[in-house]
Amino acid sequence: MKDHIQYDPVSGTLRLLDQRLLPGREEFLLCRTDADVIRAIQEMAVRGAPALGAVGGFACVLAVREIAAAASDSTDLERELETKIAAIAAARPTAVNLSWAVARMRRVWRDNPDRDIGALINLWETESEAIRREDIAANRRIGAFGAELVDFGDVILTHCNAGALATAGFGTALGVIYTAFKQGKDIKVIAGETRPLLQGARLTAYELHREGVPVTIVCDNAYALLMRRGMVHKVVTGADRIAANGDTANKIGTYGAALLARAHGIPFYIAAPLSTLDAAMPTGDDIPIEQRPEAEVTHLNGARLSPEGVSAYNFAFDVTPAELISGIITDAGVLRPPYGESISLALGNI
Amino acid sequence: MKDHIQYDPVSGTLRLLDQRLLPGREEFLLCRTDADVIRAIQEMAVRGAPALGAVGGFACVLAVREIAAAASDSTDLERELETKIAAIAAARPTAVNLSWAVARMRRVWRDNPDRDIGALINLWETESEAIRREDIAANRRIGAFGAELVDFGDVILTHCNAGALATAGFGTALGVIYTAFKQGKDIKVIAGETRPLLQGARLTAYELHREGVPVTIVCDNAYALLMRRGMVHKVVTGADRIAANGDTANKIGTYGAALLARAHGIPFYIAAPLSTLDAAMPTGDDIPIEQRPEAEVTHLNGARLSPEGVSAYNFAFDVTPAELISGIITDAGVLRPPYGESISLALGNI
Repeated sequence: MKDHIQYDPVSGTLRLLDQRLLPGREEFLLCRTDADVIRAIQEMAVRGAPALGAVGGFACVLAVREIAAAASDSTDLERELETKIAAIAAARPTAVNLSWAVARMRRVWRDNPDRDIGALINLWETESEAIRREDIAANRRIGAFGAELVDFGDVILTHCNAGALATAGFGTALGVIYTAFKQGKDIKVIAGETRPLLQGARLTAYELHREGVPVTIVCDNAYALLMRRGMVHKVVTGADRIAANGDTANKIGTYGAALLARAHGIPFYIAAPLSTLDAAMPTGDDIPIEQRPEAEVTHLNGARLSPEGVSAYNFAFDVTPAELISGIITDAGVLRPPYGESISLALGNI
Repeated sequence: MKDHIQYDPVSGTLRLLDQRLLPGREEFLLCRTDADVIRAIQEMAVRGAPALGAVGGFACVLAVREIAAAASDSTDLERELETKIAAIAAARPTAVNLSWAVARMRRVWRDNPDRDIGALINLWETESEAIRREDIAANRRIGAFGAELVDFGDVILTHCNAGALATAGFGTALGVIYTAFKQGKDIKVIAGETRPLLQGARLTAYELHREGVPVTIVCDNAYALLMRRGMVHKVVTGADRIAANGDTANKIGTYGAALLARAHGIPFYIAAPLSTLDAAMPTGDDIPIEQRPEAEVTHLNGARLSPEGVSAYNFAFDVTPAELISGIITDAGVLRPPYGESISLALGNI
């Protein structure tokens, strides 16, 4: 698949494949400023924790380029830039990758004694490209480690989209699936549609179908029946943030899928790069859960589904407790319980 | 709410509120023949197990009226009528109420020595009206028994629609809610939207909102999060067929909701009239599960949601094992485990 995140250093603009329009239309959204990128993130033109990390880096580049173009003095620069990148980090609260990427840009900035704004632009362009490239490389390693867990003939259930579109490229959960498929493992995928925004039915089905991986869509509420009938052998999803104890925030419905998998004796795996691990968050109880507009639930494609005047809850994520997770497939290998230890070790904190 | 099933004995026609158009439009569908009714059932203009029972009775009346109008001889009559009512019973396979209603009509027919077709029309009109009236009365008893299980301030999660629209009137699960609400119990309802046809978001929200019961819609995949957060105190759903051991077929997603309720220590109740009990079905394993067109999952309001060429599973029902059910609220009282005994007793088989 073509890169869905395209930075052009000549014009200093970012083009994002507008995921809201898939699979019907493949159109790129042009972002000229960091504010454009923040809007694209908040309105879900781009989503997926690792993708947000990469996009967050480029948003910082657009921010510093805008300040450079306005030619303010250097005292203002520091304050203005800090305000801008803090806003980028806060564009969506649950995925850790946005604030992780911004922290990484901030470190490059602080570590560089050269206060020249042109130099900072260059440094950040390099760093953003590094984040993007490293994410793709991490996903390929996740794919290789994860594929070892996949057996011939497996039917794998995945929820939401943790594919190329959710990352800088290749995907986490779908990276595992692509790798196992290319190994000739004769697998099939069940994609949960993932209400309300249908990332499974729209994006996961789109990606897998393009790559020739057999995929069947189901409504989210069919998971239990499929598991009971033996139609699901493994569950693999992505993650938006993994706490130090292994509790994992991911798209709403993941926690339910994990509970149902446990009840049916089906392994449940998380696939995510180390950049999704948040060692500063002791447990999942502290992970902020974004609530999004009710209209995402009450409307679809502009048409009202439910009666006027009736409200809706729209929690965008939930937290799966570590004890329901059979393994966390990272770019440093498959982490196993007890996660407190294995995560610490993977992050080099032990 | 006005009757959504209206039989006119003068013209011999049945008017059904077209539930596919709710909550946007309130339009009645005119059925002149039993074939019209079968189409309305198969295309989901009318749905809900007890409602199908009532509609099935009137469909038999339309069938015999059509034969009478064609004035065939009496040998043909018996064979033709049997063919027609067998087709009515088979219009949808999972809910037992259609075949239950048809069996009841057949019994009236066989028991009546008078072979006059005009007399049969009268008998069946009376019997159909009786089925309808008895269903409403049963639902009021279900409401009264069930309301005793509801505490002040309860938040009750219900899946799909088991309300006035799913019955001849008043509702089963919603009958419990209406009764508790009228008792001043200050309850709130969470309506799972119930993909793919959104009976919860469309019909349950519509009914409850009209009656002034506070209702909030959620996507089906949010149940686990809401339960974990203590936002659900009880789950009450309807049933399409209850086997002799208590295993219960109901709308897809019910089994998952019951498993999640169990995992969070939340009581899970089924509300259904005795006519939904199928003593001839030993366990839920034997209940036929209807698979409906893929397009119900891949399209919404005529618009394609998922990529061309990608298939979907569309199991319309699932089976909740008896051991996950805290109680079955019937018109004969709340049945408790072991259900083999309590169901047998309720049906007068012990």
